[in-house]
Amino acid sequence: MSKVSLTKISEILGMSKSTVSKALNNYADVSPGTRKKVQDLANELNYKPNIFAQNLRSQESKIIGLLMPEIVHYFFSTIISGVAETAEKYGYSVIVAQTKDDYKNEIKQLELLLDKNVDGILLSLADDTIHFNHVKDVINQGVPFVLFDRTSKLIDCNKVVIDDVKAAQMATQHLIDIGCKKIAIIRNQLKSQGTIDRHKGFKKALLENGMVYDKSIDFEGRDFSFSAGKIAGNKICESHKDVDGIFALTDLMAIGALEALKEHNVAVPDQVSVIGFSNWFLTQITTPHLSTVDQPGFEIGKAAFNLLYQEIQNKKNNVKEASKTIVIPTTVISRDSTK
Amino acid sequence: MSKVSLTKISEILGMSKSTVSKALNNYADVSPGTRKKVQDLANELNYKPNIFAQNLRSQESKIIGLLMPEIVHYFFSTIISGVAETAEKYGYSVIVAQTKDDYKNEIKQLELLLDKNVDGILLSLADDTIHFNHVKDVINQGVPFVLFDRTSKLIDCNKVVIDDVKAAQMATQHLIDIGCKKIAIIRNQLKSQGTIDRHKGFKKALLENGMVYDKSIDFEGRDFSFSAGKIAGNKICESHKDVDGIFALTDLMAIGALEALKEHNVAVPDQVSVIGFSNWFLTQITTPHLSTVDQPGFEIGKAAFNLLYQEIQNKKNNVKEASKTIVIPTTVISRDSTK
Repeated sequence: MSKVSLTKISEILGMSKSTVSKALNNYADVSPGTRKKVQDLANELNYKPNIFAQNLRSQESKIIGLLMPEIVHYFFSTIISGVAETAEKYGYSVIVAQTKDDYKNEIKQLELLLDKNVDGILLSLADDTIHFNHVKDVINQGVPFVLFDRTSKLIDCNKVVIDDVKAAQMATQHLIDIGCKKIAIIRNQLKSQGTIDRHKGFKKALLENGMVYDKSIDFEGRDFSFSAGKIAGNKICESHKDVDGIFALTDLMAIGALEALKEHNVAVPDQVSVIGFSNWFLTQITTPHLSTVDQPGFEIGKAAFNLLYQEIQNKKNNVKEASKTIVIPTTVISRDSTK
Repeated sequence: MSKVSLTKISEILGMSKSTVSKALNNYADVSPGTRKKVQDLANELNYKPNIFAQNLRSQESKIIGLLMPEIVHYFFSTIISGVAETAEKYGYSVIVAQTKDDYKNEIKQLELLLDKNVDGILLSLADDTIHFNHVKDVINQGVPFVLFDRTSKLIDCNKVVIDDVKAAQMATQHLIDIGCKKIAIIRNQLKSQGTIDRHKGFKKALLENGMVYDKSIDFEGRDFSFSAGKIAGNKICESHKDVDGIFALTDLMAIGALEALKEHNVAVPDQVSVIGFSNWFLTQITTPHLSTVDQPGFEIGKAAFNLLYQEIQNKKNNVKEASKTIVIPTTVISRDSTK
């Protein structure tokens, strides 16, 4: 059975298409009897109005785009879930796409989303995006737009973030509070705002506690991965035996470091305490369970959609508002990897 | 800057809208000079054609729907990634939605996708879906439709699956090959085809090796979770000390069982070998690393989109094909949790 059209219904009933359309829309100038006849047949044939025609009239798709660095990534999957669940309440669906952390791909994916006439876009910047004209173009076209998680101070738009400086400071403070005297940091290159801010928070905590920042135990990995964390962990075990605390900027890096410590028979947390960042599900099932900073993805996704929805309404009503940034709170979660 | 319309371009150039439209579409009855003038201005103003009008003409959205039990789920996230990457090559975008493993929600989410006029739908059934009229309705409406991973023999459509019987049989055989004599199974209720088939494969392996199926060490959990696995693991440690092998139908259950064994000081793999199912990323970072069955989500997603794309083409060309099922191969991955 193919899709039932308005034409088909009008042919079967021998009525004009305009009468059928009016009957379906409950217009008063069609008699109740005719209305019932048309509506009953429409129900029977499972008639669906042509959404494309409706979209053309309303210029709305009720679809938004969600573009992120990675789909196979616990934190981002919690964001997809938060966005999708919130969007659904307002009748919106969510196109999900990934940049694979690549600047050129980000440009391409944004164009693909615009081609689908989404009503708005949520974007978390690729790690190597340092030019922003492609983003500014979208915003200048008047497309409702919210940046989340990985944002840039150089883009003026609504944002949903965590306070990375404060979160990293709290994580480092946790290590200091439990007695760590020599704390290493494992991080990615200082390119994205998140990394820069977490690095800043780490140094701030050291400074405020009268501790010296030691460049030789500041490890820069190739990326945020398990293996980058393991490489740094190996270096710590081999050349920096006085390190008694490790702050890794991602849970995966922290777990990689745990693996290196285990292979070198360094006891966690007795000899070295380790704290990660993000509170991925897997931190609850490592040995030992990993202390970390909870970065609530579902809440970030929810807040990002709500901001975007507000922008969509503002656009309809020709309302202009100054850009705002919503900061979602984070908390340190102390588990077995810190004393 | 708001969106540039065809009308705007025609006003600026003092041409009719139809001339502008023809010039943009390279019609030969518009002079090359005029065509260039129009196209240059369109480029300069960043003109985008009205996709809604194009969609109305083509009756295509170039968007497909992907509906799955869970978004925050490693295996399903690899499927999203496989679908999105493959779809993109054909210019399609992917709406992602979740049923939360709930039958009623599945019905609702399917309707939401149809409301968005997607060109096709990929569905993995909710765990408690045992009636299929909502799915059959979609198929009968002529919407291109592919079931993947969690399917049903009662639905006649294209499918992408793994051979769960064979995969479970191979996992159990691996335990037998390394010398396990008393093998427990940890599973969910026997409702979904996948669970039924994996259970069947487990029993088949025992039978073919002349081993007795023992109902007392066949553990049925509330769900597929870490905690369901841990509960079963605790029971094994407390009441079935002769068990020397555990086959868990999901990696999470297996990791829950590992945790229980660890808490009871049962050595893995020396006293008990454990194998999971799915090859989630986290199996590579547990202690010990978990043996498992690789269920390649990216490949499943890729194959599912390719099948759907073929259906979309067939629909355009009025071609009918018999339903087919593509079986994606699985492999046993032996790591440290099995001897």
